[in-house]
Amino acid sequence: MNPITVIRERISKLGLDGVLLNTSEITRSFNLKYLSGFSGSDATILITRTELKLFTDGRYKLQCKEECADFQVHVTRDKIKSISNFLLGKNTKRLGLEGNRISFDLVSALRKSSKEIEFVSFDKRNLECLRIKKDKIEIEKIASAAKIASSSCNDLLEMGLSGMTEIEIAGRLEFLFKKNGASGESFQTIVASGIRSALPHGMPTDKIVQSGELLIVDFGCVFLDYCSDETVTLVIGTPNLQQEKIHQVVYDAHYRAIDCLKAGVSCVYVDAVARKTISDAGYGKYFMHSLGHGVGLEVHEAPYLSPRRKTILEEGMVFTIEPGIYIEGFGGVRLESLVHLTASGPEILSKAPKSLISIN
Amino acid sequence: MNPITVIRERISKLGLDGVLLNTSEITRSFNLKYLSGFSGSDATILITRTELKLFTDGRYKLQCKEECADFQVHVTRDKIKSISNFLLGKNTKRLGLEGNRISFDLVSALRKSSKEIEFVSFDKRNLECLRIKKDKIEIEKIASAAKIASSSCNDLLEMGLSGMTEIEIAGRLEFLFKKNGASGESFQTIVASGIRSALPHGMPTDKIVQSGELLIVDFGCVFLDYCSDETVTLVIGTPNLQQEKIHQVVYDAHYRAIDCLKAGVSCVYVDAVARKTISDAGYGKYFMHSLGHGVGLEVHEAPYLSPRRKTILEEGMVFTIEPGIYIEGFGGVRLESLVHLTASGPEILSKAPKSLISIN
Repeated sequence: MNPITVIRERISKLGLDGVLLNTSEITRSFNLKYLSGFSGSDATILITRTELKLFTDGRYKLQCKEECADFQVHVTRDKIKSISNFLLGKNTKRLGLEGNRISFDLVSALRKSSKEIEFVSFDKRNLECLRIKKDKIEIEKIASAAKIASSSCNDLLEMGLSGMTEIEIAGRLEFLFKKNGASGESFQTIVASGIRSALPHGMPTDKIVQSGELLIVDFGCVFLDYCSDETVTLVIGTPNLQQEKIHQVVYDAHYRAIDCLKAGVSCVYVDAVARKTISDAGYGKYFMHSLGHGVGLEVHEAPYLSPRRKTILEEGMVFTIEPGIYIEGFGGVRLESLVHLTASGPEILSKAPKSLISIN
Repeated sequence: MNPITVIRERISKLGLDGVLLNTSEITRSFNLKYLSGFSGSDATILITRTELKLFTDGRYKLQCKEECADFQVHVTRDKIKSISNFLLGKNTKRLGLEGNRISFDLVSALRKSSKEIEFVSFDKRNLECLRIKKDKIEIEKIASAAKIASSSCNDLLEMGLSGMTEIEIAGRLEFLFKKNGASGESFQTIVASGIRSALPHGMPTDKIVQSGELLIVDFGCVFLDYCSDETVTLVIGTPNLQQEKIHQVVYDAHYRAIDCLKAGVSCVYVDAVARKTISDAGYGKYFMHSLGHGVGLEVHEAPYLSPRRKTILEEGMVFTIEPGIYIEGFGGVRLESLVHLTASGPEILSKAPKSLISIN
């Protein structure tokens, strides 16, 4: 169903006259981008039962014509006044807001000039469901991002990493993303070596990678606004037995989770399949995060594959499967694939190797 | 004066019991980082007349011990409840909020459990003044960031740019930042060639740079949390007369503005010096942005050197001087230096050439 139609149904159900979303340099709304097409850094949209309005300033006049065909665009120097005038003219009583991305100051300004209107939060779950299933064009964009990122990772591995710092490895990979056609990285690349690989989100440092160390590289790029996300684990030189053992457990958890993916299973079930594999091998307490998350315009979005989420997986969803084991003082292994759930099962969009890659 | 002392004076003056700031993955507060030292992505701080509190979750327990020595840290699973309990226990009546970075949802949740408290916006000017003058350690960090960025730019120019796309040039420069010791870029590098150089904020595309074209590169990196910002203008091959003429006007505007810098002059005055140089040469309407902005934890912060700002420049401020001329269908020139204002005048922290660089 068209997302605007879904929103209008919810507006009616909740007794609202409309819903307002805002994007700014300080707080970006991906839902606003998704619903309106607007890619700039300053606009407010208003979806009412019958109208679609976008308020922005002169900088975006031209851009809105190209991007926001469905919306009636108001270019204004005083956004608050224009919005208030519109709301009051329509006799608005109760307006939903994208409450986790709208600032206290913006609401205060609207309240001042629209005293009769009640502002209520339009729960984020009302909005995140809109983007949870991807259409064909979105999937093509995510698949392209994943392909660029994976082949960039393969290019990086071919170069060898000897004598490089974690920051240099991250920088080199991010350069390859751009060289290979991405517009940038989808998040700050994680490169964590040696005992630092036990940090699930170890930001790269100026530490030089050493022979015998585990090395986790968690990376993604952006292609036509859509993100990818993938993780590989390497060992510099030859792996030792414990490194191989831990890798094998994570590898099994990763592929067992992927093997059970089909439309109709729940997030909590898939998480449990991976978690049980790790627990049964005796490493349960070392896997302390969720199994995965959706990927699209944002690198973290619904669905969330965690022990607490009962969301049912459906055809068209794109998400990560990323079990890990992290042992303080020893190091860690994480393997992450980006998966598109199709009618016939999982399609793995990411292509970098999930074996324990030995590199010099 | 200690920034906490400044805030407490303002709290008293405004009849507030305290001020609350919040940082999250969605909306980052650099003021929270500056005031508390906290570098993570989820925390709330509360500065009252007598206490300094920080509320966060288990992920940041260890980190807070290292980073937030002045604050009493509360690790909690229910942040709203912990904050409300504290506020009610202290008989809070009126609380200031960093209103442009606090979400409607957060305030609504606090209101629900603290019905008697009046929440008011603590104007951003009360906060931005705190960071406007840099201390010695901050200046060293900014100077290091500027040095890394400038020498990375020089490394890039030595390589030559022939046959490269704008995105590749940006990616290569960002890689050099990291290779040279930065943690990353301070904003998405601008690379705009040919007629695209007339876009003041032209994001890099897959366009290959061509002989005879102007090329604007606007770049900065981050070192120990502090930003740099600088712009060079190149020409591929040999410049033509009009390119040289426009460059000369911008060059004169840039150095005349720098020459008049001293403690006690106003932002509007310095902007006017540059603007007059460009207007007198007949290009006034092609310089349509402000002359500069402060740089620190954020790449855009106070002071703002614009025709509308009467702020008086003081020793210890760090800001850009970046006049430009942008002619649609022809191209543009911008020259940007990062300046530290000292007792004896301006110290230029950025070091890449401001001449019209001819490159193959």
